[in-house]
Amino acid sequence: MDEFFLAAVKEAEIGISEGGIPIGSVLVHNGKILGRGHNKRVQKGSVILHGEMDALENAGRLPASVYKECVLYTTLSPCPMCSGTILLYGIPKVVIGEHKTFLGAEKHLQENGVEVVVLDDQRCKDLMDQFIAEKPELWNEDIGV
Amino acid sequence: MDEFFLAAVKEAEIGISEGGIPIGSVLVHNGKILGRGHNKRVQKGSVILHGEMDALENAGRLPASVYKECVLYTTLSPCPMCSGTILLYGIPKVVIGEHKTFLGAEKHLQENGVEVVVLDDQRCKDLMDQFIAEKPELWNEDIGV
Repeated sequence: MDEFFLAAVKEAEIGISEGGIPIGSVLVHNGKILGRGHNKRVQKGSVILHGEMDALENAGRLPASVYKECVLYTTLSPCPMCSGTILLYGIPKVVIGEHKTFLGAEKHLQENGVEVVVLDDQRCKDLMDQFIAEKPELWNEDIGV
Repeated sequence: MDEFFLAAVKEAEIGISEGGIPIGSVLVHNGKILGRGHNKRVQKGSVILHGEMDALENAGRLPASVYKECVLYTTLSPCPMCSGTILLYGIPKVVIGEHKTFLGAEKHLQENGVEVVVLDDQRCKDLMDQFIAEKPELWNEDIGV
């Protein structure tokens, strides 16, 4: 199993252990993790810190040339916000744990030239299933429903 | 002049006075400002706090039903990240100061049913012209160029 994907899953697990939403992400450049993150809606009362956004924020300010060589790993299909951010910074590749729980803006990413890989990972689905069964309203809030 | 748009311009002016990027935004619901914000790339070293994102973050966690009755005011055409966030939360209307300096994902917003109003405001253009003339590299960083 890809060590970077495992790092994203680890972030999701940290999220659920904190009482938060179990979605994790890491930004990788040339075999090195530049930023790790997980959804912080509960922990920080944030409406913009989805897992992917938290990873990008934790990676800090980077030259455009670096983003264009990065891969973003995320445990769940990226929503319109996170997908828009991937497009803003020109990140060329996204590796996604699963898109059964929630199908984000993958088509929009692909139409704009982003390579999208979906792993269909059971662990990611189990984390979301457990979370949504326990806190359906929190999940709906996170995806604007 | 619309008081809400003026509040967004005021945020942009605060931004430039702080040495930051002069883009401001406010989120309005039923005639009341729920959140004000301006770009915080410089002030907080943030890669996700564009003006619109800062306004939404400062508005805090809201029910989906509230977003769906909101208008987002912004001094500059919303980039793919901010546009994706508008779509995530189902904000139905965006009022934009200008889109000459930078044309964001307005078409994507419109294709997804968002009402887009562009004011072509000279003050907003002047703020951006002054800023870009002084700090072109910072501006490019903010839009992933």
